[in-house]
Formats: sequence, C-alpha cells, structure tokens
Amino acid sequence: MDIYFAGSIRGGRSDVDLYARIIDLLNGHGEVLTEHVGQQDLETQEAALSDREIHDQDLAWLRRADAVVAEVTVPSLGVGYELGRAVAWEKPALCLYRPGGERDLSAMVRGSDELTVAEYDDPASLDAIVTSFLEECR
Amino acid sequence: MDIYFAGSIRGGRSDVDLYARIIDLLNGHGEVLTEHVGQQDLETQEAALSDREIHDQDLAWLRRADAVVAEVTVPSLGVGYELGRAVAWEKPALCLYRPGGERDLSAMVRGSDELTVAEYDDPASLDAIVTSFLEECR
Repeated sequence: MDIYFAGSIRGGRSDVDLYARIIDLLNGHGEVLTEHVGQQDLETQEAALSDREIHDQDLAWLRRADAVVAEVTVPSLGVGYELGRAVAWEKPALCLYRPGGERDLSAMVRGSDELTVAEYDDPASLDAIVTSFLEECR
Repeated sequence: MDIYFAGSIRGGRSDVDLYARIIDLLNGHGEVLTEHVGQQDLETQEAALSDREIHDQDLAWLRRADAVVAEVTVPSLGVGYELGRAVAWEKPALCLYRPGGERDLSAMVRGSDELTVAEYDDPASLDAIVTSFLEECR
C-alpha cells in the first residue's frame, strides 16, 4: 500500500516531530511516499529543487497513492491543495486534527463527506486511528 | 461572469480588510459569489450554519464559478482545498501573494502550471493584475 503523508512545510514547522511520529506509524502499514515531510532538515533539502520540481514530484506521488493521511492542525495552503486534488481523484483521505489550539479546523475539511476527520488530543491514540482508517482502505 | 473569491477564514483574519478591497475590485468585473469572505462579522454569520452547510454551499459556488481569485498570503487549509478542487475542475485561478512576510508561498501553488500566481507589494497594483487575469478568462 502506497501512502501519501501531508503536513505543513512553509505554513509552519512547529509539528515536525509529530509528523515524524505519524510517518513511523504509517511505515508499519505500507510505503510512505513522502517521508521527507517529517525530516528536520527538509527545507535545506528542498532548497536544491525548484518549486516546479517539488510540485511535480509531490503530485506524482499523490496520484500514485492508495491512501492519504494529513495532519491538519497547522493551517497549510499546500496540505489543503493536496486534499482537494486527492478528493477529486476519489482517494481515501484521513485528516488528523488536535482541537483546542489557536485555529479551528476549516469547514471545507470538517464539512466534507469525502474526507475522514479524526480529532485527537493524545498522540498515543494515533496508532488505533490510523490502523482503523487504513484497514478500511484495503 | 461568476467569480469565486477565496481568503482565509479560520486560518486567520488579519487580511480581512484587504479581502474586502479585492472583492470590491472583482465586483467591477462580474458577480462575486463569496462576498461574505470580506465581511468583518463573517464568523458570527457562519456560526448559524453547520460545517456541512458551509462546505456544500461553498463547493456549489466554486463549481458554478467562471474564475477563481484567491488571496493566499495567510496560509489557509480551506483556500488550498478550494484551489485543488478548482484545478481539478479546470477553472482558471489567480493566486495573489504578498512576499516578504513570515510564510513563503507553498511550492504546490507556486510550482503549479495550472494556477496563475501574481506577487504584489502595493494593493494599488491589484486592479491591473485582476483586470488582466479576468480579461484572459473571458
């Protein structure tokens, strides 16, 4: 199973350690096409690529993915864009959101029938959430 | 011409006065389906609606639009989602971005062939940018 993980990059990297933890979990279920999203030095790596190259590579991975998992607590234009493209391609997509922070979750995400939204407080609950979602994708 | 304007709502309202100014400009070119995005009391109005109702109404307007104009300087999951759906529907979409702030523009937006990105510093230049884009959409 090919899994596309989406997390904020230029929208803000405050959750990068959490992204790495989610990617670790996902690696137990299939191949994560976007492991770099959880790496601390991602912005240095991406500096060697043009925005066109980043876009084309990410979109090719998204097209290939069997499932999409996004952490959406930090608002990100790119993550939203990827979710919009994923829904248009009818890919199953899980949005993980921690309530209680500064930014409420977008109505375009929470109000969508085509996205699965899971709210959580404790990252320890992510394993069960992710496993249940990916089992349904198989 | 029906125009869908997209700006950040739950991602942060610091640019709301600018959104109102852009909507005023767009009103000179057609019908703006999403005038509420520029209103100060939007969050009070939307509190009367469920997220499902907001999503379904906005997606219906997006589907109907002849052109999409987004202000993307404040990162927003919802705006990104709308841009992803707009591209999938092959709608012309203009992304207006003010460089020099805290957040660089997403590579998924700046690197896309299917989105038109215009960077600007002075809102006085928006009239010419918007007019040029909408003329090409006709």
